[in-house]
Parts: sequence; structure tokens; C-alpha cells
Amino acid sequence: MITSTTGPQPADFADVRATNLAVVLRFVREHAPCSRAGIAASTGLNKATVSSLVADLIDRRLVRETGLTENRVGRPATMLVLDGSPYAAIGVQIDADSVSAVATDLAGERLLTWRRAFSGGDSVNQGVAGIGAIVRRVVNRMAKEERQVLGLAVAVPGLVDAQGAVRHAPSLGWHDADLAGDLTKALRDPGFPIQVDNDANLAALAEQRFGAHAGAGDLIYLTGEPGVGAGIILDGRLRRGGLGYSGEIGHVQLDPVGPACHCGRRGCLEAMAGIGAVLGRTPEPAEVQLEIEETVRLARAGDARTLARFESAGRNLGRGVAILANLLNPEVVILGDHYVPLAPWLLPAVRDELDERVIAAGAGGCQVVASTLGHDAAALGGAARVLDSVDSGRLPGGLSRIP
Amino acid sequence: MITSTTGPQPADFADVRATNLAVVLRFVREHAPCSRAGIAASTGLNKATVSSLVADLIDRRLVRETGLTENRVGRPATMLVLDGSPYAAIGVQIDADSVSAVATDLAGERLLTWRRAFSGGDSVNQGVAGIGAIVRRVVNRMAKEERQVLGLAVAVPGLVDAQGAVRHAPSLGWHDADLAGDLTKALRDPGFPIQVDNDANLAALAEQRFGAHAGAGDLIYLTGEPGVGAGIILDGRLRRGGLGYSGEIGHVQLDPVGPACHCGRRGCLEAMAGIGAVLGRTPEPAEVQLEIEETVRLARAGDARTLARFESAGRNLGRGVAILANLLNPEVVILGDHYVPLAPWLLPAVRDELDERVIAAGAGGCQVVASTLGHDAAALGGAARVLDSVDSGRLPGGLSRIP
Repeated sequence: MITSTTGPQPADFADVRATNLAVVLRFVREHAPCSRAGIAASTGLNKATVSSLVADLIDRRLVRETGLTENRVGRPATMLVLDGSPYAAIGVQIDADSVSAVATDLAGERLLTWRRAFSGGDSVNQGVAGIGAIVRRVVNRMAKEERQVLGLAVAVPGLVDAQGAVRHAPSLGWHDADLAGDLTKALRDPGFPIQVDNDANLAALAEQRFGAHAGAGDLIYLTGEPGVGAGIILDGRLRRGGLGYSGEIGHVQLDPVGPACHCGRRGCLEAMAGIGAVLGRTPEPAEVQLEIEETVRLARAGDARTLARFESAGRNLGRGVAILANLLNPEVVILGDHYVPLAPWLLPAVRDELDERVIAAGAGGCQVVASTLGHDAAALGGAARVLDSVDSGRLPGGLSRIP
Repeated sequence: MITSTTGPQPADFADVRATNLAVVLRFVREHAPCSRAGIAASTGLNKATVSSLVADLIDRRLVRETGLTENRVGRPATMLVLDGSPYAAIGVQIDADSVSAVATDLAGERLLTWRRAFSGGDSVNQGVAGIGAIVRRVVNRMAKEERQVLGLAVAVPGLVDAQGAVRHAPSLGWHDADLAGDLTKALRDPGFPIQVDNDANLAALAEQRFGAHAGAGDLIYLTGEPGVGAGIILDGRLRRGGLGYSGEIGHVQLDPVGPACHCGRRGCLEAMAGIGAVLGRTPEPAEVQLEIEETVRLARAGDARTLARFESAGRNLGRGVAILANLLNPEVVILGDHYVPLAPWLLPAVRDELDERVIAAGAGGCQVVASTLGHDAAALGGAARVLDSVDSGRLPGGLSRIP
């Protein structure tokens, strides 16, 4: 009668050491420069254990000693900072008209940001070739800097299952593509793991690690591409659902007799609050940026029709955000990508709708803000996902070097 | 720049032992009768550690030896089963017209199920007195059986914050009530923890532990009271949101020009797919059960108006479930309480809507089923929440007895 999958997992001693290595690494990430004694005091680990863990992390070149000493009574302490100079994490983001690549070091500092044209109409094979080409160049650059690539995560606008297969990416015309497998072949087994994920999911990870609300436990990111998707972080982790298909807010129906959506239904959030609704028409991918700049110019000049369209799209967006706030009670909902330049006009209407529609007082504490991360948030989130793996204890070099 | 709350926590050795005690306890819960050697083989813990942990669990009377031996080559092994005979977990559920109490043993077997009349119009003080009276009787009965009460969790139909304060329970007329504190006083510091939670949340915990889909990692329970609330389990845990207000699906708007809702808005899920919509009117709490039986009789007799109402409410409910499936991709959505007798008519319409509205193929694998747990699922879930605390390592007697 009784089963449960919610309880703790056994902690054997190899696990304990891997966990504690990760804990020390995270502590240095967040508090550097810091001393071994400081780590021991804050983590509850004893000093001998901390010394042994730090020696291991220095050996792996994840942490290094600096010449600094703490200002304190007694013997001066050697201070520790993140090293990570021999490592890089790569994130790639596929959009309808471009592919962007970001590489960061272990601390999350950007090492490069590249973008090249990409035709959404390409077949999966052509797409893989294009992505492979940019990744190969990034890997070569990292090799020149004597950095080992820790991993690659690719952001795709569409349904990606829990195993990383692209089930349905309408703007690319891709179906049931084993992108990770194909890329591994195209890169000839590059020796680092390749992950594929939904773009909203990875952008949410970028916000969690690098954004203005970094560290928020309950955070939702909304993509402002022509499509609208949600990346849902609850209790500090991305929630993908049973098969990995969570976050499909774009075709939630706001109005049964609303405007026709390209999906064939009526009154979808995407049709009523997507970039097409804001602009009054859906432009070609390559034109979106220019059209948004033009419409923002009109709004600034006080054009009544533009302002009315912004107000209406903002209210509809607010209805979608209110669904999220009522169902999931997030601390913050972040509007991404093309929504960012439009936020000064959209946000007041979104907040009005929240106040009106959320059952808990004060919208349940839910803030709505514009992203500060820019257009390549999902690529940056790919790098964040690679760093998350390291922070959870999957350290480079594996555990074989533990004495 | 970098912060993160997602990584592992440090594992010091007291934690390790508490974690491992809980792991062994859960293993015995799920696999009893089992031997020490079997536990060691399946959990990866070494045999000496398992023997020491089992001795501790026997000492706490959480596990006991049976006379059975495994059928195997070599020395016969003493088999272990859950004991827990000296313990009880109590759950209480407050409805508009009654209060129900359930007590279970450590294995989740019901020890008693009581219900008494309760007037929703009562003040919080009168409510606390009524709940206190039934709890006191349950505690007395448990004392007669020489059982120690591990804890009490109370299910309230309304907004309950993360600290357990009742913010807003419209069917009871309660606002900003410190129910846990008031109950602790009314019970004169009973010596066990008292928790308060939303009824849908606790019913979801009951389904996770005792229901037909027990163990599902991604499970959503929908209350079928006059109000509609959701209890959301993702990745094996209840997700409460930032302040604890998640699951408010009842006033998600399905149609901006839909029927008026008692909340003052129009076209809410509750107004279009709640029990009132199924029955064609909202009866007094005491009449709901009878009216449902009467309307089921009409449906069985083929009454066209009744069947049309069921079809329409089922479609509207399906629109709400489709929002959940698109956003959260659960494995299963469970219709509870008053929806259960209506399920044969509602479910086909719900499933049609899912197929039509969910972006992922096959509704993203989302099943929709009727609960098998009965009317007091939330009370049973209260007991489940107490048992969850034990399974997570909060063992009775604390850790002071660990050598």
C-alpha cells in the first residue's frame, strides 16, 4: 500500500565527499576571497575535512590560493578564490534567424559571445551542420586559451523531451530530432557532454544564476519571441514535468472567441499578447528587431493607436501572468527578449491585471520585471546549466582522483 | 555576481546518520519483510552500518524483527518489518459543514476515522473549540492504545501561508487566523507539532502516498468541493510557491464573458466547472451530497438536460486541466471529492479537451482519473504529512539517542 519517492537517498562515503566538494566549491563561488577557517565556520564541516577538500579542489584547478590574508587577530590565513582558468562552459541558442554561442569560465564570466545567421527553414541536417560549425570554432578558441570544455547545452525554441530530443519546434520546422546525438556525431565525439533543452528553461536558469533576481527560489521566465514559452523554477530547481514538456503557456486560451492563432485555435496567449499582438502583425524573423524599434519610437511620440495596442497586449499578458501567479505563486515573473524594450508600456497593464485577478493579497508577492540579460539569455543559460552540473558535484576529472 | 541556492548542502556526520536512518526506514516501509543483508545490497550502505542503523530503529520501536527467515542458501536471516505500534499520525480536515479526523499508524494503516458536524459560519474561536474537541478525543483514544502522537496536520479550504496562518477561507468566513497557534493553546501544548495546510495540498500528499497513482513524481489533485483548488506535486514534492499560495486554479478565467462567479469576476473555472455548474445551482453545504446523488440518478436515467450540463461542465473542466497539462506536464491529474461520483460523465469530455488543447502529443502523457481515496482525502493527507516528516529523518525521540 505504501510507496514514496520523496524521501532522502542513502549517503555513502564517496557521495558524502562529492557533496562536500561541491559545497566548498559553491561557498568559494559565493564568498571568495575566503579562508579555510571561514569555510569551516560557515559550512559546519570540520577544519581537517575542509583542508582536504580544498587540496582536492586546488589539485583540480577549480580553486586557487591568493596572496591576500584576512585582517584579523592571530596567524594570517591564506585566502582562496575560484580558479577555473583551465575550464569553459558553452551555451548555444537557436533562433528562427540566428544561432548564438556564449562561453563562460567557471565563475560565469563571459569569455566570448558570437552570433551567426541561421535559416529557420533549414532541415535538421543543415541546422546541425550550422550549429556544429559555430561550436567547433568556439571549442578551437577555448583550446587556444588552454581551457577544457566542461560541456555544451543547446537551447531550442520548442518542445524538448526529458531525454533532450526535439519533439516539435514549429519556428524551425523540426520534428522528432535527436539533436544531441546528431551534434555529437557532427563534432566527432568531442569528449564533453552535450545537452539539449527548451529555450525558456535555459533562460530561466540564466536568470537564476546571473539575473537581477538571481537566487530567487520561485522564478518564471517568459520568452518574448514570436512564440511565448515559460521556464518554471520552483523551490530552486527547474520543473520540467513528467516528460519534459512543461512551460507551454503560449497556447493557453484567454478568450474562446479571441483572435485566430497560427496554431488553428482562437484566443491563445500568443495571439493576444505575443510580439505579433504588440506590433499589430507578425513580421519576418529578420524584421522583428527593426519593427519593435519603430513601434517604440511611435509610442514615445505618443501615437494613440500604438499606445492602445500596447495597453491591450499588456492586459492580455497580465491575464496570462495572473494564471501563473494563482497556480504557482512565484516570487518573480521575468519578461524576456523582445518584451524588454516594450516593458515600460506593458508592465503597468500587466500589474493592474495581476492586482485584479490574483486571489492572494498583493498578487501573492509576485513581482513582474523585464529581464536584464539581453537577447542571448538562453545561450547564457546553456552555460549556466553546464555550471549547475559542476556545482551539483559532477566535477571535472571525475572522482577517480579522490584518495 | 554569482549566487545560487540550488546546490547540495554540506553533509556532516550527524546529518549522514539521520539521512541513512531515514533511508533504511523507508526501505523497510516499501520492501518489508526484508533482511539486513537485503537492505545493504539495495541501498549501497555497508553491512556494519546497516546493522547499527537497524539497531537504532529497533530501539526506537520503528522497526521490529519477525520470526521469518529468507528462503536462501546459507545462514537464515532474521527478517525486519515496520513496527510503529507505539505511534500515531493525526490528520484533520475542515469542511463547510463537518470536521473529519483520521489517525494512522506508522505504516499508514488507518486506526480511526471520525467525523462530526461543524458550522462553517462559526467564528475562528468556535472553530478552534470544535476542532480541539475532536482532536482531544483522538489523542485520548491513542493514549489508551499506548500510542505516542507524532504530529497533527489540519487541512483548511482556503489560502494558507507558508507559516501555516489561514489568510482567507471564504467558505468558513475566516481571515488571518493563526490556527496552529490557537489549536496549540486549546490543546494546552500537547507535546506534538501542529501544522496547518491547504486542503488540496494535503489531499495531493494523500494521493502520493496512498492513492492509485502513489509514487508518481508529477501529480496534481483537484478538489471537487464547491470551490476548486489544486495540490501540485512536481518532482516528488509539494510545490507551495514563494509564500505558500500556489494551487489557486478556481478563479482562473476561462471566458471573459462567461457566467458570473461568486468572487465578482466572470467565467472563472469554479463558475464554469465547479459542483455548482454540474448541478445547475449551488446548494447549501449540507445538501450537496444528496443533490449529487439525485443528479447522478437523472444522468443514469438518460435525462437530456442533466447529460448536457455534465458534458458542458466536463468540457470546461477539461479546459482547466489543459492549462495544467500545458504549463506543468503532470503524469496524472486526479479529480477528488464530489467530482468522483460524476467522473464517468465528466472524464470523457475532459479527455477530449485535453487532446484538443495540449501542445505535446498524447496530452503530454497526462492521465486524468477519479480519486479512489474518498471524501476525507485531505484528513488522510494530514496524517501523510506527519509521516513525511518521519520519512525525511525527523524521527521520534530525536537524534539525542544516537551513540
